Amino acid sequence: MSISVNINCDMGESFGLYKMGEDEKIMPFISEANVACGFHGSDPNHMAKTLRLAKEHGVKVGAHFSLPDLQGFGRREMKIDRDEMKNIIIYQIGALKGFLDEAGMQLNHLKPHGALYGMAAKYEETAHAVADAAQIFNVPVFGLSGTLHEDIFKARGIEFIPEFFADLDYDRNGNLIITREHHAVSPQDAADKCYRAVTEGVVRSVDGIDIDVNAKTICVHSDTPNAIAVAEAVKSKLASFIS
Amino acid sequence: MSISVNINCDMGESFGLYKMGEDEKIMPFISEANVACGFHGSDPNHMAKTLRLAKEHGVKVGAHFSLPDLQGFGRREMKIDRDEMKNIIIYQIGALKGFLDEAGMQLNHLKPHGALYGMAAKYEETAHAVADAAQIFNVPVFGLSGTLHEDIFKARGIEFIPEFFADLDYDRNGNLIITREHHAVSPQDAADKCYRAVTEGVVRSVDGIDIDVNAKTICVHSDTPNAIAVAEAVKSKLASFIS
Amino acid sequence: MSISVNINCDMGESFGLYKMGEDEKIMPFISEANVACGFHGSDPNHMAKTLRLAKEHGVKVGAHFSLPDLQGFGRREMKIDRDEMKNIIIYQIGALKGFLDEAGMQLNHLKPHGALYGMAAKYEETAHAVADAAQIFNVPVFGLSGTLHEDIFKARGIEFIPEFFADLDYDRNGNLIITREHHAVSPQDAADKCYRAVTEGVVRSVDGIDIDVNAKTICVHSDTPNAIAVAEAVKSKLASFIS
Amino acid sequence: MSISVNINCDMGESFGLYKMGEDEKIMPFISEANVACGFHGSDPNHMAKTLRLAKEHGVKVGAHFSLPDLQGFGRREMKIDRDEMKNIIIYQIGALKGFLDEAGMQLNHLKPHGALYGMAAKYEETAHAVADAAQIFNVPVFGLSGTLHEDIFKARGIEFIPEFFADLDYDRNGNLIITREHHAVSPQDAADKCYRAVTEGVVRSVDGIDIDVNAKTICVHSDTPNAIAVAEAVKSKLASFIS
Repeated sequence: MSISVNINCDMGESFGLYKMGEDEKIMPFISEANVACGFHGSDPNHMAKTLRLAKEHGVKVGAHFSLPDLQGFGRREMKIDRDEMKNIIIYQIGALKGFLDEAGMQLNHLKPHGALYGMAAKYEETAHAVADAAQIFNVPVFGLSGTLHEDIFKARGIEFIPEFFADLDYDRNGNLIITREHHAVSPQDAADKCYRAVTEGVVRSVDGIDIDVNAKTICVHSDTPNAIAVAEAVKSKLASFIS
Repeated sequence: MSISVNINCDMGESFGLYKMGEDEKIMPFISEANVACGFHGSDPNHMAKTLRLAKEHGVKVGAHFSLPDLQGFGRREMKIDRDEMKNIIIYQIGALKGFLDEAGMQLNHLKPHGALYGMAAKYEETAHAVADAAQIFNVPVFGLSGTLHEDIFKARGIEFIPEFFADLDYDRNGNLIITREHHAVSPQDAADKCYRAVTEGVVRSVDGIDIDVNAKTICVHSDTPNAIAVAEAVKSKLASFIS
Repeated sequence: MSISVNINCDMGESFGLYKMGEDEKIMPFISEANVACGFHGSDPNHMAKTLRLAKEHGVKVGAHFSLPDLQGFGRREMKIDRDEMKNIIIYQIGALKGFLDEAGMQLNHLKPHGALYGMAAKYEETAHAVADAAQIFNVPVFGLSGTLHEDIFKARGIEFIPEFFADLDYDRNGNLIITREHHAVSPQDAADKCYRAVTEGVVRSVDGIDIDVNAKTICVHSDTPNAIAVAEAVKSKLASFIS
Repeated sequence: MSISVNINCDMGESFGLYKMGEDEKIMPFISEANVACGFHGSDPNHMAKTLRLAKEHGVKVGAHFSLPDLQGFGRREMKIDRDEMKNIIIYQIGALKGFLDEAGMQLNHLKPHGALYGMAAKYEETAHAVADAAQIFNVPVFGLSGTLHEDIFKARGIEFIPEFFADLDYDRNGNLIITREHHAVSPQDAADKCYRAVTEGVVRSVDGIDIDVNAKTICVHSDTPNAIAVAEAVKSKLASFIS
């Protein structure tokens, strides 16, 4: 079986005059853009602009939806039940699809943002809410492998695409080590790490132990200080596997 | 040529715990629901709920988009240029379409809300922004006949459906007399007025002069104090013309 | 020692055109208004209007601050750390004080709203954040007796005023039985219950057992269906104790 | 009569994770900070942080209030009547005063932001709304000299402090030439221009004609590309006049 992998990045997170990430510079190095939908970042103008940019570069677009928390950038957990969460997600995916309609593009995937990403990995209700939305729009969802999120999707027969983080570390249990701000990483090391994850299915944890990982798409963060160099190195290293 | 008319009503304008309108009671008497998209009223929960209600009653659904002004209920004019306005509109239509996708329904029409409705009638940029959005989603737009809004739509070859207001008065120039709050009107008078508008194409203005009107869809407001009686009377009177 | 008690009610929770509660009708029966500050309900117009109403009736005004969640009416828990919570609270109290300055009135007390009220009763960080704000403005805080909220305030030497709910039931452990919507209660029963709580310091729990309560101020809810009758009955029964 | 002048700068306009301006670097060169109040930029955390920074540098703090338009950064005109506008302003000033109370500081002045600044210069209702708020808090207001804003304040006997812009050009009628984004200017030219405005009361307009100006406080913008160099040069040149 031939190896195939994508490189994804969160995009379009600027808001009004506020700028976040260097979307123009990073877009050439990715194959999938997770576009913010206005609940943690972005707004109608930035969504329209981001889709034009993605289209120019032949990059596929997914919905990067969030808790309704612009001031907290979607990073503060909120207690929201399954049905309400589903509605919050549908609203955002729909809004993005409006701009996809304008651009003549298709919705490629879904990826929860921030606290919602973590909640989908640990709370059953949240994972189900994401799955409910995925079924409506019939696209796969990116998430962290080996979590409740993946379990629930498999049980419901919904496509789940495990992602691997080029610029974050893992502990011995496969958990991501999340920092409030992303730190610069060595582009070469990141690329090598991704190559190994894709070809061998393992990563060296911060504890020095190799752990199993499942890397169908590689996430690079646009707010890592040297994000562009990382994306470029990862793309270069994985070029032969990118569809 | 046989006469055909619809009855439309703004719907789903409740927000969180705040209730607006008696959607459940008025839905049986209308054929088209203009559903708020979250910018002047509504939220993901109310949008989902409103579409379920519309579907139960076989009522067609249009997007009732607004300026981004929840606190002002979309009734305060904002200076927004054409491109940004178009994006604001696309976002809201898309969001509603997300819930239409869930409900297995189609988008039937567009209708700007509040200040945006008035702006589309008098500002070229606004009318064009609405037209830009209508072209993307390929559905007709409701608006006030005899305005810049209609002129621009005709010039661009986009379908414009003139609406007639069952519960508002007109002056001798065909302008609506807008009041901050809607007042109770006699259901029978309203029904008779609509019947005459639909069959004869005229309405008696507040100045006592008959003026020409074009009534392809009748708007009843759900926040008129006796909205349900008005809707019921209008529907009863126009029953033979409603598709 | 003579008994002294107040009657408080959440006020000013309308938002834009959305109406919540019957403030005009209930104001005559209370001595303390907890005025919403715009984060779960209210807006600058309603805050100004509510203070005018309170002043007319000689009612004291406190800040009824909330989590930043208008759509959820402040009833969805959010994970927010102590320092950020303190800032969120200061902002709201300050905003209310702006209108108090206009009205020539003083800030009388603080009372957290909704999920924040519950969080202050069970999370140390939240209770401390409320205490931090109380120290700045040097006013007492209303809360639920026998909770972490009271413990932390006592430990820090900040005035805590235990409140008793006229229209809610208690379980045998002194916990409030919170319902999503408030139900109508018998005004006479409510008044008798309050009288006993104030004079004897006990309430009959839903389990049929008398439990100790500390009632320095009585809370009546304006969205209980028969709120006005309840407030009137409670005021009448406790008239001799109200300062 | 000895000359006295201040240097003011808009501050605290970051929002959540979004950064705007280099407040830490520019604070040493100004004497008055116009602190955003959360309606066009800032949030409770940034307001608290900005006041701490101002206090460290002995900088006086004024309220930089705005139209309620975070997404448009307060730069889109909104039709809001006098009474509602007054309430919007009171809310923001009050919120800032909350943090001033925490910091043990006094409110020094008011300065409308963006579209509201321009509206106060040309619309009577807006100028009166600002004046209404200024009377409540009894502090002077910064604004553009020779406008309706100044006229109305003088007529009502409220203190108006004319400001001069170090980094913007003027036309022959004394109007500011506003650009969507601020451009880099020569620090030395800006300093010389301010010196002449302060000492001679004139500025060379873009039309090459000297026009009269009244410069009691000099505004430097923190989002001008070389803002810090401009602020530093202006402060150095005017050092002897700064109180």
